[in-house]
Formats: sequence, structure tokens, C-alpha cells
Amino acid sequence: MHRPEVTATLLLSCQDRKGLVAGVADFICRNGGNIVHADQHTDSEEGVFVQRVEWDMAEFGVPRHELRTAFQPIADSFGMTWSLHFSDDVARFAILVSKEAHCLYDLLARQRMGGLKAEIPIVISNHPDLEQVADSFGIQFCCLPMDPQAKADQEHRVLEKLEEHRIDLVILARYMQVLSAEFVDQYAGRMINIHHSFLPAFAGARPYRQAYQRGVKIIGATAHYVTAELDQGPIIAQDVIRVSHRDSEANLMHKGRDLEMVVLARAVDLHLDHRTVVYGNKTAVFD
Amino acid sequence: MHRPEVTATLLLSCQDRKGLVAGVADFICRNGGNIVHADQHTDSEEGVFVQRVEWDMAEFGVPRHELRTAFQPIADSFGMTWSLHFSDDVARFAILVSKEAHCLYDLLARQRMGGLKAEIPIVISNHPDLEQVADSFGIQFCCLPMDPQAKADQEHRVLEKLEEHRIDLVILARYMQVLSAEFVDQYAGRMINIHHSFLPAFAGARPYRQAYQRGVKIIGATAHYVTAELDQGPIIAQDVIRVSHRDSEANLMHKGRDLEMVVLARAVDLHLDHRTVVYGNKTAVFD
Amino acid sequence: MHRPEVTATLLLSCQDRKGLVAGVADFICRNGGNIVHADQHTDSEEGVFVQRVEWDMAEFGVPRHELRTAFQPIADSFGMTWSLHFSDDVARFAILVSKEAHCLYDLLARQRMGGLKAEIPIVISNHPDLEQVADSFGIQFCCLPMDPQAKADQEHRVLEKLEEHRIDLVILARYMQVLSAEFVDQYAGRMINIHHSFLPAFAGARPYRQAYQRGVKIIGATAHYVTAELDQGPIIAQDVIRVSHRDSEANLMHKGRDLEMVVLARAVDLHLDHRTVVYGNKTAVFD
Amino acid sequence: MHRPEVTATLLLSCQDRKGLVAGVADFICRNGGNIVHADQHTDSEEGVFVQRVEWDMAEFGVPRHELRTAFQPIADSFGMTWSLHFSDDVARFAILVSKEAHCLYDLLARQRMGGLKAEIPIVISNHPDLEQVADSFGIQFCCLPMDPQAKADQEHRVLEKLEEHRIDLVILARYMQVLSAEFVDQYAGRMINIHHSFLPAFAGARPYRQAYQRGVKIIGATAHYVTAELDQGPIIAQDVIRVSHRDSEANLMHKGRDLEMVVLARAVDLHLDHRTVVYGNKTAVFD
Repeated sequence: MHRPEVTATLLLSCQDRKGLVAGVADFICRNGGNIVHADQHTDSEEGVFVQRVEWDMAEFGVPRHELRTAFQPIADSFGMTWSLHFSDDVARFAILVSKEAHCLYDLLARQRMGGLKAEIPIVISNHPDLEQVADSFGIQFCCLPMDPQAKADQEHRVLEKLEEHRIDLVILARYMQVLSAEFVDQYAGRMINIHHSFLPAFAGARPYRQAYQRGVKIIGATAHYVTAELDQGPIIAQDVIRVSHRDSEANLMHKGRDLEMVVLARAVDLHLDHRTVVYGNKTAVFD
Repeated sequence: MHRPEVTATLLLSCQDRKGLVAGVADFICRNGGNIVHADQHTDSEEGVFVQRVEWDMAEFGVPRHELRTAFQPIADSFGMTWSLHFSDDVARFAILVSKEAHCLYDLLARQRMGGLKAEIPIVISNHPDLEQVADSFGIQFCCLPMDPQAKADQEHRVLEKLEEHRIDLVILARYMQVLSAEFVDQYAGRMINIHHSFLPAFAGARPYRQAYQRGVKIIGATAHYVTAELDQGPIIAQDVIRVSHRDSEANLMHKGRDLEMVVLARAVDLHLDHRTVVYGNKTAVFD
Repeated sequence: MHRPEVTATLLLSCQDRKGLVAGVADFICRNGGNIVHADQHTDSEEGVFVQRVEWDMAEFGVPRHELRTAFQPIADSFGMTWSLHFSDDVARFAILVSKEAHCLYDLLARQRMGGLKAEIPIVISNHPDLEQVADSFGIQFCCLPMDPQAKADQEHRVLEKLEEHRIDLVILARYMQVLSAEFVDQYAGRMINIHHSFLPAFAGARPYRQAYQRGVKIIGATAHYVTAELDQGPIIAQDVIRVSHRDSEANLMHKGRDLEMVVLARAVDLHLDHRTVVYGNKTAVFD
Repeated sequence: MHRPEVTATLLLSCQDRKGLVAGVADFICRNGGNIVHADQHTDSEEGVFVQRVEWDMAEFGVPRHELRTAFQPIADSFGMTWSLHFSDDVARFAILVSKEAHCLYDLLARQRMGGLKAEIPIVISNHPDLEQVADSFGIQFCCLPMDPQAKADQEHRVLEKLEEHRIDLVILARYMQVLSAEFVDQYAGRMINIHHSFLPAFAGARPYRQAYQRGVKIIGATAHYVTAELDQGPIIAQDVIRVSHRDSEANLMHKGRDLEMVVLARAVDLHLDHRTVVYGNKTAVFD
């Protein structure tokens, strides 16, 4: 059996109604598409329907550039929030960091090995420390220091950089700054943060310190879409690791770093594969 | 939003072809059904398509007793292997045991608490040891001892009991006997075994002994549909737990028991919810 | 190599000082004891030393009934908080429940199968619902309903029952009542609760509801010693399980039950094996 | 409380005898050492005793360079196999690779971030592919291609390189060559391999292919000391990740890479912290 060269993926959410699944499937079917993956979910408390459908574009009756227009009437008839993606799209993402290098190293290495379908035109930091890391991968490093008196200015310069490089996805890879609601809004659903705890436990500052003091037997990491409320955005991925009374706070940080980089990479992967749909304050993950 | 009172669930597999998803969705849609869950998978190596679709039967245009007949033409046109289930079906299952009580206790307690949509008319064993356990739950216990000279006879008596009680699902809850191919064939896809290792590691006898001697750092348990080849059937569920050099073989057995009962219960749950489809030697689990 | 028939286990904590390990090891050695397990921990932030030492009593020079007296001078010289236990001690524990049966079934089945070195003379509840469960295991069930106007009275009656049955360990197996500080103090370090979340996330009421609303990707359970502050006591054991957007609140409860019973049983096991030492608000677990 | 600047760590194994723990503790105590970590294990089947003791060297009565001589009589009296290490030792390790870059990237980044107490003077490969990776970290890359007709020659050249650089630890980071017994013997207990399966399942070639075909629900990775028998050496660390019927063989490889790099790094960490003692075909891990 052949593997499709290019597939289209439709992500949608709307109020649940009869005929939704059939309506979408019929559109694809009557245009000659073969569905290679379809997954859906009905949140019966909220009455919300979310779906991911992926089909082979070879022999599909509607050409790629007309697809959005062709699907619009169906979307309208059901009141869908939707987006369409192609498997050969290459996302452009920016990585924002402060002083911790592990997530940055990990993401750059993955991209270099071909494990991420993305270009990374720029790394932005409020500190100069990680310039060498970006350099060793031949990626532009832009240091925009934070002046607490002029936080809005710094954010503005970051935004300019993101726009200049036409960034699709912003990754906060241990960027230790709280972003304003204005900034966050511009990248709603397109900005992922890694928080170094198992949220909602230990939100805010120094989660490993908090975990150490509470004496937990498991620590975690959480990747989530960023919203205006700190550490409250829709969760994409979480993972945990066992610890014991033997682990000092420094050990927790050491063990936690592995989690952080793996969980962040997994979330970025899921986003790049168009496997996430945000609805309300939750993320449906069609993995 | 209302939760449906009764749903129908269709499980199917067939050779992958265009129009499959639309064909099924259209059947449900034009009869007025609202799909509450749909999941599918295409195994592109094998060219096999498997699907689970569940819809609300309230207001559905085809009455329950005519549904199989109504769907048959679609199934035929795609060459489907399929089965149809209703959410208010109550399975009847038999539990086969030898001397270890933990999985038996666990399954009986779950059923008693209402956690399993099933009746358990009988517990069958080749040893008398667990009669009291069945008794304390008021369930019939049938001891059919194994005479190595007359293995076929014993199996025959077991089969008679299963038929007498119209058993839908046979659960081997640490039944320490290898069943003949003849026996297995009669309950193909309807007999679940718990093996006390992370298969394919440590198949066969004394897996904890083998794990202890190998010095592994993690042990596991595996629930699978039974096929004629020992410990080789399609895997439904697996789980693992960390161990260390400190754990004696007895400790591994002790820790493993928790895994065995949880993994077996999970597999039984998935089967009872009609979330498993066997194809080739694999199980698609639509959880 | 022989396995010892009876071992003695010393649990101790004190301010860290030179010579502690040698002092204890020397006491055992010069009385002819063979150490079968020794583990220790120094909390360098708190300056606290905790240790577990277990040795074979066969051929040990100090008879069992004189051991406490013989060790007292060493304990005094280091200012130790300590306790001594023998491997053939059989603990007596009481299980307190409300309406949920799964942890109760699990503990009673484990004890019946010989998996817990304990006698269970009584099950106490504020509701009559689980009487049949206790009955089916032949264990006395005592219903002491809670009158909100007379909470102290009910607690007093519970305490009387615990004393009457000379209870060593109180297990709150989903006992849905907050206990007063007076009650808690009487069983400090001898009362274990299972909380149905990954603490400190979702402390308090309805943790599965909270988890559902937050959209977490992993849920957990926590067993801890009970202190006067609700859900804040020293943690003994935690475990987690993956969930997804598909899981309704009811599903989270269903999946969580398996965790609760396994985590609670593990904590009880660790306590009965004298593998836990509480210091500050933490538990050192020498597993 | 102060954290010690330099500690000494003693690793030992011998036949189990009375007085072992006291003998070692007494040696440290009477020379004025404060034990910061002590852990031991008695394998009662084998009659083997293994121990790790770590103590503060500040104010210790025996100077560092005389410590081995001072301890030798005690070691002799108990017939110990033992080694002594200091916390400020810096290991020198070589990484052997073939074509897969992920473990190499990960180890080099960890070392660069200060997370590994080690120098990495050389990366050796049988293929030229990863030269750029080593280059970007400024580390010497040595390509020694494998001529199947002259395997011994190639191994000989690798050994020369290891000796030239005074290598303490050889890390096989997806080095796809089976090493001869002669080679292995020279680095017994000092060569760590990462195998891309949950051993003993799927030993040998193409473990992800095997896992895919068997339809397992969990895959794993195993780090072990290398012995002459392929994939049979003492296991140091293992970890697993859930997979499903959806995961193609390529997906298993993708998910597995994260495991491989984390498990290998953990094993290297444990070795560098002198937390592993090999006895028989097992590894005691004192974490």
C-alpha cells in the first residue's frame, strides 16, 4: 500500500449537531479523497464537537489553492471554527529563552536531525548567555534585555522580530518572563510554554523548590498554550518522573530537565502535526 | 446536553478503500443518528482499515432488531468483517482460575460494585482452593481437576459448562493450563488471558523467576486475546512497574500482582465497551 | 544462604552528627547481629539524619525483650527519636470508610490472601452502605453516623472503638470526613489517608471534578500520614495514570479508583514493613 | 548545614559475613569521617553483599593519597572487590557512534551545560556522517570505517585511540557494531551501551521492527554494561513509553529516540556518580 505524499488536515470545532461527521466525510468522499486518519470528540458537558480529518491529496478533485473556498460553505452551515493544513507545510518558529540551555539544545538538535518539520530563523533571549548555543547551530541570536521600567518596549521589540521573521509558532523554552495579555493575544493558540511542574501543582515561581519542600514522590512537567493567565493555559502534554526523599532540590532540577525537554518537544510535535484543537480551556490531542 | 441512553457501536475491519468512512457515516446520518464517537485506523503496511463508530439510538430511523439487516448491504459492498453492539447489552462471563486469588477477588469486587457491565454466572478452576472466594461473592464455583492423562476430557467438561451458561467472554485469571487449539478456536476473540510479564519478554513459565535472574529494572504484565500459540495472541493492554536489585523474586511476585489485576481489568473493560478490534495478530484499541 | 526467620528493625531520626552510623553498626556487630538491610539519609538542609537498620535476631546476643533497654543509652547519647520492630509482629488495623467500596474490598482481599501482615478486627463507617462488604469477609462492621451537630461525639465513639480493639494503624480508605486535630494527634504517624489526586494539586473536595475542568493529561493518587491540616500530611506514596480529553469526569473516577487502591495498599505495605520514617513534614521511604 | 566539598565513595562487593557494615563504618568513624550516604544490599540467593559508602573528606584523618593503602587491610580481611572514588574526579569518556545523532547530541549538550562531570576528548565512528555534530561542539571526531574483512584491525585502531586519550568510560551511543570479546574484556564494567528495546524483549537487530510486528502497547530502552554476549550485560537503567496501534514503525523509532537518550544519560550519570556495582550479571544501583 502506498503512503500518501501530501495530505490535507482539517481541524475544526463547533456546537455539536447531527450530520457533522457525515457532512465532512461526504465532502471528502465526493471529491475523491481517501481519508487516512479521522478522529473526533464530543464534549457532552459543553456540547462541543471537535474533529481532525486527514486525507490524501493525490487524485483529490479540488486543487490545493481552492480547498479553503470549497470547504467554506460546509463550515458556515455548521458554524465551525476551523483550519486547514498540508503535510508539506513547513512551520517557522522562534524560540524564546533566558539562561537555561537544555530545551534550546534539544529543539535545535531535533530540527537539525530532521525530527521537526520546521525552520527556526531566530532565537530571542532577555539574556546574552545562550548566544553560543544558537551560534553553534548557525542560528541568529537576538538579545533583547528586559528593563523592568520598560517592559512594554521590550515586548514590542520581540513582537517586531517575530513579525519580521514571519513566525508561526513561538516556543517559550524556559523564558522566565511573564508576558502581557496584549502579547499573548497576538499568538493565541500559537505560543507554547514549558512549565517545570505537574500543573496545577506548583504554578508560579520556583516549582522545584516548592516540590522539594512538600516532599512529593513524583515531579512533572507541563507544556501548554499560553494564555493571559499565568500557567493556566490549555494543557497539551504532561509527564512525570519518580523522586524520593534522597533528592535534593538540585537533583529535582536535574531530573526535571529531562522531563522538560521531552514534554516540550512532544507538545511541539503534536502542534506541528496538527493534532491539537483548543476548545474552552482544554486541548483535544488526537494522537 | 443530554447523554444518550442507548448507543449502538459498530466495529469493523476490511481492506482499505476510498469511501469507507463516508459510506458508514452516511448510513448513520441519513437514518437520523447522531455519532457520539468515531475512531478509525488505517494500517498502511497491511492495507487494512479498522473502525469503531458509536451513535445515539434515540430517534434513530432503523429499529434495533432490524439494524443488522439494514447495514448488511454496506458491509457486503466493502467486504467488511463487522459486529454490532448495544450499550445496554450485558455480557456473561466465566472466570477460569487455578490457585492465585488476586485477579479473581478483583474482578468479582468490580462486578459487585457495578464497575463491569457483566454477569458472572460461574467460576471454573482445576483446583479446589478458591471455592471460598467465589462463595463469599455468592457465585457458583465449579472444580474440574486436570488429569494429565485426560486433558481433552477436562477441556470438554469446561466447554460444556461455558455453553450451559451461555458465556460470551472467558477470562483466564491466572489459569495455569495451556489450552488446546480446539478449545481456543471456539472462543477466538472472546477469551482474554493475563500473562505475568511484559510480553514478549519472559513468555512461558515462571516469568518472575526469569525477570529476577535477568536483573531487569522494570517488570510488566500483559493482557491478550488467547490464540493457539502460547503467549502470542494479540495484545490488548500492558503496564509496568519499577523494581530494583533489592527486590527478591517474592517481591517481584508481590509487586506484579497489582499490575496483573489492573491490566486484566483494563483489558476486560475495553472489551466490554467494544473498544477493541483484532486484525492480523494485533489489537486496535479505540480508547 | 539462609533467610532470617525473625529480624529486628530500628527506625531512627536525630540531628546529624559524626559517628552515628558507626555507633549503631557497632552495637549490632558486637552483639553478634548480621545486618540484612541498612539504609540512611541525611537531609543536609535540615541537618537531620534518618536511618533504617534491620538485622537477623538468630544468634543475636541481646534477647528480644531486653533490646529496647540495651539500645536506650546509644539513643540517648545521640538524642534519637526511634522505634524498634520485629518482623513477626502482627499489626492490628482499623479501616474507616464512607460509601466507596473499592479500597475496602482491596485491603480485605489482600489481608485474606496473606499479603498484609495484619489483623483487621473492625471496619468503621459513618454510613451503613458497606456493611455487606465487611460481612462477606467475616469482619465486624460498626456504623457510627455523623450528626453535624455532634461531630465531637461521633469522633469520641470512633476513638473508643479504636482503643477497644487496640488498633495500631488507622486506614482512611475514602472516609469522607475531616477529622479534628484532637483525633489526629492520637494517631500521629499511625493514620494513613488516600487522597484521590496528585497532591498538592486538587486538594480538598471533588478532585476529579477539578481535574476534569482543568483538562490535565495525567491524574494521580496520594497516600499520606494524616495531620491536622487537611491533605497536607507527609506523603508516603503517589502514582499517576494518563488520561485524555476523551475522559469524562466519570471516567476519571473510574480510572482513578485503580490508582487509589494500589497507592493506598503500597503505603500500608511500606508502613507495615517499617520502611517509613517521618521527619518534619516529609516521609523518608526506605524501599 | 554545610555540604561537603569533596567526598570519598567506596564501592565494594564480597561474600556476605557478619561485621561487614560495622567494619567499614568503624574505619570511617575512627578516622573522623562523617558518612553522608551509605547504602548496601545483601543478595540472599547468591550470598553476596554489596555496598556504597560516601563520606566527607574534610577533616578526615587519612590523606587522600594514602586512603587506598589504609583501607586495603580491611578489604583483604573480608575478601572484598572494591574501588575508591573522589567526588572531584573528572572522568574521561569516549563516545562511539554510527549514523544516528540523537544520543550524541544529547550527551555533548549535557557535558557542555555542566551536567556531566566528564571530559569528552574524542568521538569515534565507523561512518563519517556525524563529523559535523562533533565539530559544532569542538570535539575531535575520528572515523574508523569497518571493513568486514578486517574487523580485528578496526577494533585495534579504536583501542589505540581509547588508550591514547586515557579513556575511563566508553559509551556506545547507537554504535551499530558487535564488539569482540577481546575488546569488551578491556573495558569490562567501563563500557555502557544503549539498546533500543526493553530487554530482554527484542534483543538483536531492528527492535522497533520487532515491536511493531508484535503489536506491543509499550516500548522501551535499556542501558547496560557491555559483556561478550550481545545485549546480555548487566542492566543499569530502563524506561518505557506507551504506544498504540496507530504508531507506525517510523513513529516507534521517533518516540524511542527520546527514551534512548534519557535512559543512556541516566546510566552515564549513575556510573559517574559511582552509584553502580556490578555483581554476577546484575547491577546494584544505589540511587
